[in-house]
Amino acid sequence: MPDKPRHDDRLTLESLNSLDRDDFIACLGDVYEHSPWVAGAAFERKPFASVTALHAAMQAVVAEAPVDARLDLLRAHPDLAGKAAVAGELTADSSVEQASAGLDRLTAEEMARFQMLNGAYRTRYGFPFIMAVRHADKARILAAYEGRLGHEPATEIAAALAEVGKIAWMRLLAKIVPVPSGRLTTHVLCTATGRPAAGLPIDLFRIDADGVRRLLGHFVTNADGRLDAPALAGNELEPGVYEWLFEAGVYFARAGQATDAPPFLDRIPLRFAIANPEAHYHVPLLLSPWAYSTYRGS
Amino acid sequence: MPDKPRHDDRLTLESLNSLDRDDFIACLGDVYEHSPWVAGAAFERKPFASVTALHAAMQAVVAEAPVDARLDLLRAHPDLAGKAAVAGELTADSSVEQASAGLDRLTAEEMARFQMLNGAYRTRYGFPFIMAVRHADKARILAAYEGRLGHEPATEIAAALAEVGKIAWMRLLAKIVPVPSGRLTTHVLCTATGRPAAGLPIDLFRIDADGVRRLLGHFVTNADGRLDAPALAGNELEPGVYEWLFEAGVYFARAGQATDAPPFLDRIPLRFAIANPEAHYHVPLLLSPWAYSTYRGS
Amino acid sequence: MPDKPRHDDRLTLESLNSLDRDDFIACLGDVYEHSPWVAGAAFERKPFASVTALHAAMQAVVAEAPVDARLDLLRAHPDLAGKAAVAGELTADSSVEQASAGLDRLTAEEMARFQMLNGAYRTRYGFPFIMAVRHADKARILAAYEGRLGHEPATEIAAALAEVGKIAWMRLLAKIVPVPSGRLTTHVLCTATGRPAAGLPIDLFRIDADGVRRLLGHFVTNADGRLDAPALAGNELEPGVYEWLFEAGVYFARAGQATDAPPFLDRIPLRFAIANPEAHYHVPLLLSPWAYSTYRGS
Amino acid sequence: MPDKPRHDDRLTLESLNSLDRDDFIACLGDVYEHSPWVAGAAFERKPFASVTALHAAMQAVVAEAPVDARLDLLRAHPDLAGKAAVAGELTADSSVEQASAGLDRLTAEEMARFQMLNGAYRTRYGFPFIMAVRHADKARILAAYEGRLGHEPATEIAAALAEVGKIAWMRLLAKIVPVPSGRLTTHVLCTATGRPAAGLPIDLFRIDADGVRRLLGHFVTNADGRLDAPALAGNELEPGVYEWLFEAGVYFARAGQATDAPPFLDRIPLRFAIANPEAHYHVPLLLSPWAYSTYRGS
Repeated sequence: MPDKPRHDDRLTLESLNSLDRDDFIACLGDVYEHSPWVAGAAFERKPFASVTALHAAMQAVVAEAPVDARLDLLRAHPDLAGKAAVAGELTADSSVEQASAGLDRLTAEEMARFQMLNGAYRTRYGFPFIMAVRHADKARILAAYEGRLGHEPATEIAAALAEVGKIAWMRLLAKIVPVPSGRLTTHVLCTATGRPAAGLPIDLFRIDADGVRRLLGHFVTNADGRLDAPALAGNELEPGVYEWLFEAGVYFARAGQATDAPPFLDRIPLRFAIANPEAHYHVPLLLSPWAYSTYRGS
Repeated sequence: MPDKPRHDDRLTLESLNSLDRDDFIACLGDVYEHSPWVAGAAFERKPFASVTALHAAMQAVVAEAPVDARLDLLRAHPDLAGKAAVAGELTADSSVEQASAGLDRLTAEEMARFQMLNGAYRTRYGFPFIMAVRHADKARILAAYEGRLGHEPATEIAAALAEVGKIAWMRLLAKIVPVPSGRLTTHVLCTATGRPAAGLPIDLFRIDADGVRRLLGHFVTNADGRLDAPALAGNELEPGVYEWLFEAGVYFARAGQATDAPPFLDRIPLRFAIANPEAHYHVPLLLSPWAYSTYRGS
Repeated sequence: MPDKPRHDDRLTLESLNSLDRDDFIACLGDVYEHSPWVAGAAFERKPFASVTALHAAMQAVVAEAPVDARLDLLRAHPDLAGKAAVAGELTADSSVEQASAGLDRLTAEEMARFQMLNGAYRTRYGFPFIMAVRHADKARILAAYEGRLGHEPATEIAAALAEVGKIAWMRLLAKIVPVPSGRLTTHVLCTATGRPAAGLPIDLFRIDADGVRRLLGHFVTNADGRLDAPALAGNELEPGVYEWLFEAGVYFARAGQATDAPPFLDRIPLRFAIANPEAHYHVPLLLSPWAYSTYRGS
Repeated sequence: MPDKPRHDDRLTLESLNSLDRDDFIACLGDVYEHSPWVAGAAFERKPFASVTALHAAMQAVVAEAPVDARLDLLRAHPDLAGKAAVAGELTADSSVEQASAGLDRLTAEEMARFQMLNGAYRTRYGFPFIMAVRHADKARILAAYEGRLGHEPATEIAAALAEVGKIAWMRLLAKIVPVPSGRLTTHVLCTATGRPAAGLPIDLFRIDADGVRRLLGHFVTNADGRLDAPALAGNELEPGVYEWLFEAGVYFARAGQATDAPPFLDRIPLRFAIANPEAHYHVPLLLSPWAYSTYRGS
């Protein structure tokens, strides 16, 4: 299943902003599981300049709702790999999301383990375990059960609502065309010499859900260690996993910097995900022949 | 061509240390190209406790030799992709090394470019361009020409002798069994919480010259964020390219740390090379959900 | 006011562990403000091997208490700079703590601002603003009001209980002698060369609450870039603010590493606090002539 | 002695560029010790758009000079703390520079040590030990002797010429008004949250040669974690030592980030030097409650 919906299936923000209340709820009512009241209250906050702003408005509706309404929202979710899934009674979104994480292909033993964890979780907190699983796998989901079962109830309510927010975000991106404000940039600085790393070749790959790597482009840093233009911009910036491959060995060879044979660092892969196609992702590299670091910059 | 010679072809240090002068030179005379005097002088510094110590002794012989002897050593090397290569007149070692970097399969145009660069280099410095190319490729070699042609002559003599030292190192490793003192370790610290990252799964791969990845082992960090034992030790530590794959997403899920969906950092590959199988390679990860760094530690 | 209580005023863990229930509560009943039930329940978890373990036990009592008991605990605290302070009705501990942060010397205008913020906070959450202020100042306290007034109620309850835990920690350290398991260590690695930074001089200072710096010792890194022994160990490790001063310029000069004049980095101060005298503080430096980083290690 | 010459004593680049050859040499002939030929050859490369460009041109003259001329340049320098100093026969520049480092106030024992090292160095390399000492002290100078006495002769010639270049740079800055292109900027990113650290107060100090700290300004980061304008710009950017003091504790309190009591990191001093007043110094902070790093950025 591709991460990228066909654009023509999605509504523009302009169209969304022009919907009347009923159509707005018809469109966004299922973004929060069985809880169209969130869309209903968000309608009052129109218009929305971006999917980011729309999501923030819907999250604010949830945050400002009474405690009981928030707990009801949590309780409206199905169990992961639970009876509803087995009986084919999930919402369409939930069904696709659980399948993405492989939860529709569990062994009997794995299924039993999930049932046991679901039971323990529900007993402890009074609502089902909720997790944005579209990009996760069994190891990540089991780790999350383990971690979250140790939470204080108040902490866990916040954690569960954060997952609800992530699920809503991904559902919104499947329905609404994001504005083309996003971009991906980088910058390479040599910390051994205190200078921008100029002339460093970089490949950019996209890593699909099935692990296939697609080369998206080839770049070379300019005199300031940057690219002359964003590596991706606007609607090229699809949510998903990417990888820079920095040809540090070429840079060190040209700069005449001493390295071992083979050099300790040569081709440096840097894997990261883009979650918000409307945002700026600055993913730089601080580099020496013996060390490097990276971070989400701004 | 595998990086790893069959061990039975190689001499132990014990055997090497017991050789008489003629056999010692017969064995190591071609470690420095057409310059058996280096082995001859190193013989006086027996015995050697490690290949590292043997290499240091041979490099000291070169460093302490008169300037003219050092220049003669440089001049004893063949051109890369030069006439000797074309005529099949390289030493056996040089022939294998140049083929490793693909220099035996150049197009006519590439061959012409190398000849031109060789000529420019030799004109500027009075000796041939020397580079430890076994782990390099055309892009790295061309980058090195470019960088080194800009050097001051004195700087370039030092750079060329450093490459001679790297070539000698790799030739020694093909002849002598290293002592099993080496080891590969790691340590994962979470900089968002100031605590060791416990329970983080890690895969270790070896990346062969042809790009094939082989899984060497699967590890999980202990309560101190370390492995209970080195990931590789002794003669498991072959020179070559390796990759850690840190399952940071599993750790964040268990620790309940907030991330995006998909998480900005999830599977973190960390590619590095081991050049000296007798050394300790500590290759740690400092990690937060939004940043990481690594370095050659101790 | 010194951070360090006179040791003879404090109980040893051995003595504490031998107290009967009434004496135990008499000793520790006021560690949680007006809430001796925490000490009472913690008594059942005797013996305690360290102040760290005692504090963890008391925090677990709070975490496992019913929601209402936890809210009562929060409500048992006085306002910062509130009416109780003005009327001299604070507990002895609270009085000292508020004075440490300068809250007993507010101008009328500042006092009015605190009253306003206290009111806004209490209205929003139903309990007083609580903060471990012993090491804070007005800027930090006002920043905390601002940040915490933006929290969801559930998040803010957790934040307030975390502050209660910090206050309890400092009150425990004033009553019980910690075990001498703590130590302060460092490690300097040169990321420009991939080697330990040997022979680097380091001064260690303690910075008192009044800003006075006292030199505690002078150290030099060994061949592995470490100190031969902890810089502080056991009861030398008092809670408070410390500063390493790394003489990186001396190291660069000896290593012959190129720098500017004056060098971009020369004397590198690294200021950090020790909160737990029973813990290991590893505070290393990753260093090049143009970059450095540090972290709480393990 | 202030680092900053009075501006009216210095020539503008416009004036310098209009000088005839004799006046140009009269002005800059002593920038390279007893070697006015450097200025003479640099005259041919007029005009100069900046002191940086002028210095680069003079350094290129040296780099392109015959080996013997370069060695003569090295030999034209006096010993540090040598006979010329004792006899009062230094050039005016050398005299001031050596006094800056305290070399005019050595004890007899220290003087003997310097003489011994000078002798050893001169015997090994055939020219005197040269070092840009204006910002150094005895510890740094002795460390440099130690490191540089271990060099290969070719390496040491390069190291000595690099010091000559630094001395020339500082002499040029004392004679010519730099262009006002320099600026000092910062950026604070929170690596625990992947967001710019907004609202973080920062003080900037200048640290004079005598250790006195002068507050130059108080700043607060904006929503992007940056300052709205450079902290210093143009002729405010004098060579010397500076210190940012980042009020991380205020930021953490406002952001509601969990810390210890006292917080591991609170006030973070970051000391660095500006060597080139025409350059951009970007000195950022990557920050979490448990780790930070900095680097010379671009």
